[in-house]
Amino acid sequence: MTKAELIAQIEKKSSFLCVGLDTDIAKIPSYLHSLPDPIFEFNRQIIDHTAEYAVAYKPNIAFYEAMGPKGWESLQRTLEYIPKDIFTIADAKRGDIGNTSGLYAKAFFESMEFDSITVAPYMGVDSVKPFLEFENKWVILLALTSNAGSHDFQLTLSKNGKPLFQEVLEKSQQWGNHANMMYVVGATRGEKIAEVRQIVPDHFFLVPGVGAQGGSLEEVARYGMNKDCGLLVNSSRGIIYASSDGDFALRAGEEAKKLQEEMKILLQKYMN
Amino acid sequence: MTKAELIAQIEKKSSFLCVGLDTDIAKIPSYLHSLPDPIFEFNRQIIDHTAEYAVAYKPNIAFYEAMGPKGWESLQRTLEYIPKDIFTIADAKRGDIGNTSGLYAKAFFESMEFDSITVAPYMGVDSVKPFLEFENKWVILLALTSNAGSHDFQLTLSKNGKPLFQEVLEKSQQWGNHANMMYVVGATRGEKIAEVRQIVPDHFFLVPGVGAQGGSLEEVARYGMNKDCGLLVNSSRGIIYASSDGDFALRAGEEAKKLQEEMKILLQKYMN
Repeated sequence: MTKAELIAQIEKKSSFLCVGLDTDIAKIPSYLHSLPDPIFEFNRQIIDHTAEYAVAYKPNIAFYEAMGPKGWESLQRTLEYIPKDIFTIADAKRGDIGNTSGLYAKAFFESMEFDSITVAPYMGVDSVKPFLEFENKWVILLALTSNAGSHDFQLTLSKNGKPLFQEVLEKSQQWGNHANMMYVVGATRGEKIAEVRQIVPDHFFLVPGVGAQGGSLEEVARYGMNKDCGLLVNSSRGIIYASSDGDFALRAGEEAKKLQEEMKILLQKYMN
Repeated sequence: MTKAELIAQIEKKSSFLCVGLDTDIAKIPSYLHSLPDPIFEFNRQIIDHTAEYAVAYKPNIAFYEAMGPKGWESLQRTLEYIPKDIFTIADAKRGDIGNTSGLYAKAFFESMEFDSITVAPYMGVDSVKPFLEFENKWVILLALTSNAGSHDFQLTLSKNGKPLFQEVLEKSQQWGNHANMMYVVGATRGEKIAEVRQIVPDHFFLVPGVGAQGGSLEEVARYGMNKDCGLLVNSSRGIIYASSDGDFALRAGEEAKKLQEEMKILLQKYMN
């Protein structure tokens, strides 16, 4: 998907909502277990009820990998079911050297046709570039995450006074551009998002920390939004596990709608 | 596998060889393609001819993931075929937050019974610790890799003058110990290995860069070996693609034997 197509979706739906398909077999309604592919069936219903409000879907690959070969089949089916005008993110946090990154890129971009993949920066340029060689595909590079451990290295100050996440933001701009690269930016504090937005004014951010992880949607929009919106804000558990009963998909749709309605107001207020 | 069991293997075989099972469907002899599981068949024959000389096997997960669900079945079969007294490494370079890392841990340690997994440190403590909660399982943390991009961030000096890889080595010692954590240490320069060895005297290193990636086995042993050996040196392409014909497994065995014979001499010379 191109950047223009993504922005068009955001405008059409008045939404920058990404729904995290972190589908856990232990958490889905038990009556689905008797079906041949319960994970896909859960996702299918979630997609049916949230597609109107979402501009992106993000399966975290760990949940599928944990299911073995069958999990990969559920993932493939899910991806094929997502409407083609919705952006898809393989939250895989991959990162390996050249030829191996190339294999991961093929797996996620060709065999599975994801629009984007999250990538870890530790191994540097040759672990990221192979993903950038695919037309209209995106790398979403980990910059500043929202977990406790993000303090261990991402905030380590370098000799020239910059935290590591800033080094990652600056150096990676030589590898790709705002039409094929986004950044993961955790949403726990507004001023941090403002800091990142100053360094990369034009890139989209994938913001994982709203909802269960504790960030405020209003702060994210106030400090992070740019003229293209520039944000994809993810919610997983708050939507997909809004109910554990037979009404799970209906309730997921309601929660997605609530977020979309908030987002509509924020877009009018802060997109400029 | 415990550290004592690994050391016993190294002593018994006079070897610290890890064979990288980076099995690429495009590179294996074409006559295997007619079999139901050509990837497993290739691995099976490689294992048959190298198990005498190897103390570890390391499939790089990208090669299997690139094959879709069938790839995971080949991987599972391969893992079940590897003799139980040989150490197994899932070269997956995973790293995600708490509950998600826990899922990856379950996938690789329980569903597939790997002894260890490579993990990327960028997200910090809560991305590593879930892997350390499994008894007799190991985290192999990326510290200093051997690729060109390793210079981008791993060598970035922090405010207190330490390169990032040193911050990773030092901080991660609070998370695990030398009986459940190893480090990936690239083998392109001997003095770097010596530097790492000074910081972590007792940990095992997984050294990926010997052979096609250009490191010298003698230098690795001279600068990296400790009283327990403390090294697993990987060779992939030099062994598994020694021949592309029907004699591939025999030739792989010969190459593994050559390395083992060199290693035997190096163990006598440097292990102390």
